[in-house]
Amino acid sequence: MAAPVMTADDIDRFLAAHFPQARGWTRITAIRDDEVDLALPFSADNLRPGGTLSGPTLMALADTAVYFLLLSRLGPVALAVTTSLTINFLRRPPPAELTATARLLKLGTRLAVGEVHIRSAVGDELVAQASVTYALPPPARAA
Amino acid sequence: MAAPVMTADDIDRFLAAHFPQARGWTRITAIRDDEVDLALPFSADNLRPGGTLSGPTLMALADTAVYFLLLSRLGPVALAVTTSLTINFLRRPPPAELTATARLLKLGTRLAVGEVHIRSAVGDELVAQASVTYALPPPARAA
Amino acid sequence: MAAPVMTADDIDRFLAAHFPQARGWTRITAIRDDEVDLALPFSADNLRPGGTLSGPTLMALADTAVYFLLLSRLGPVALAVTTSLTINFLRRPPPAELTATARLLKLGTRLAVGEVHIRSAVGDELVAQASVTYALPPPARAA
Amino acid sequence: MAAPVMTADDIDRFLAAHFPQARGWTRITAIRDDEVDLALPFSADNLRPGGTLSGPTLMALADTAVYFLLLSRLGPVALAVTTSLTINFLRRPPPAELTATARLLKLGTRLAVGEVHIRSAVGDELVAQASVTYALPPPARAA
Repeated sequence: MAAPVMTADDIDRFLAAHFPQARGWTRITAIRDDEVDLALPFSADNLRPGGTLSGPTLMALADTAVYFLLLSRLGPVALAVTTSLTINFLRRPPPAELTATARLLKLGTRLAVGEVHIRSAVGDELVAQASVTYALPPPARAA
Repeated sequence: MAAPVMTADDIDRFLAAHFPQARGWTRITAIRDDEVDLALPFSADNLRPGGTLSGPTLMALADTAVYFLLLSRLGPVALAVTTSLTINFLRRPPPAELTATARLLKLGTRLAVGEVHIRSAVGDELVAQASVTYALPPPARAA
Repeated sequence: MAAPVMTADDIDRFLAAHFPQARGWTRITAIRDDEVDLALPFSADNLRPGGTLSGPTLMALADTAVYFLLLSRLGPVALAVTTSLTINFLRRPPPAELTATARLLKLGTRLAVGEVHIRSAVGDELVAQASVTYALPPPARAA
Repeated sequence: MAAPVMTADDIDRFLAAHFPQARGWTRITAIRDDEVDLALPFSADNLRPGGTLSGPTLMALADTAVYFLLLSRLGPVALAVTTSLTINFLRRPPPAELTATARLLKLGTRLAVGEVHIRSAVGDELVAQASVTYALPPPARAA
């Protein structure tokens, strides 16, 4: 695996310019060669009945974590698109911050696959596991 | 398959009482014996770079469609929880209303599985396909 | 959707020449514009404890059904490869013939996605549902 | 996570008695607290066009790896059944031995989820990644 080509600040500037809706709701806490760590601060907006964080919140976090991982490795590829996502919800996440670690499993010329583990700041067991596939458009890939 | 036990209005009242965050962003357009149709009106908040609707928007719609399908069949089961979801993004959805049809594949005592097909109001091809599994908690199931 | 370009006999001859291991264990019973029906005769080799057909048997059937669907639509593409498969096992299949219907959800230039419903000859409910993605290599696609 | 309750030899004896078809085609090489390593010796029967190992071979290996992981943790639960499996095929596996590592992500009272990483003896990159969910029947769970 090669080294990252964008820092957390680079990614934030890229989002500010091209994808403002994706900016600010999470916080990149680490970028390693083939992994990115992301924190999602607690928000009552993300709760569902029973007082746990909602499934769509975890799915959006998993998708975002792999997107940021690809940005960190490929540079600015605004048009990379998710082609599939599978998530297993393992434990009901209590109302607290979440952390996601996305790891690169494959970076091909046309497809990239990442694996995501999501934990709660409360307790150390996994709350969800996901795999996410992105298609890499030829021009963006070359950029 | 048995007949539905909740109408669209029943589901709306249930959401108003137990799950207000899930209310109002979609509109149930039909409930059949083992299917529910749902419409998601267009909102610019759901766009991503390139002007297409975002993946998390489609994932939330698929998850919601199966949840409403289970409500329509089981009655008020606030605590049914998603255990897994797989989505295939087939075509980039243009900025327009989406419609989702959720179909019940299995309704067991502990697990229920639904399949979701999502189309755009523009064009008639599928934009996404998903399968969603819910765990049915014993007390809620009996309710 | 366009019309099929290979018949069941064409596919059998293609398998005999290029993929003999995949030949003979299933039987194509129908090819429609965007669907293929496949039958898997009962074999005691496919049983697991409890007397039901094994998961790997159903997974191989789902993968094969989409492969034959792509052959029927694209012509001889020996090197199309599965990139991902998700299967939901819905009911334990009794020791009897299985039938699979694969339906084309997307046929792009690089990826194709099919959905598979598997039923038992005993009972009419679904025993499994799967989605399968294939990558289409440029030369094979053009062939 | 608790300690394993069955050794590789225990599992082999259990398979010999209850599930002879599942015996012998793989070899357990390690059992740790929450992981099992499995080797699949090369067999020309598992090849597909292009000289790579077939998808169904990898799917059967992933399913088996999680089944053995559950046996190692729960003891003899012959009737645990797979409820869903998702596999991502990352690189075409050359004609060589495969090794699978299954890791336990969740062990609930009703569902267990494992993650599987499959590598080839040739090269050290992943050839496939899978997640597998099993349902644990109440009596078997208690056994």
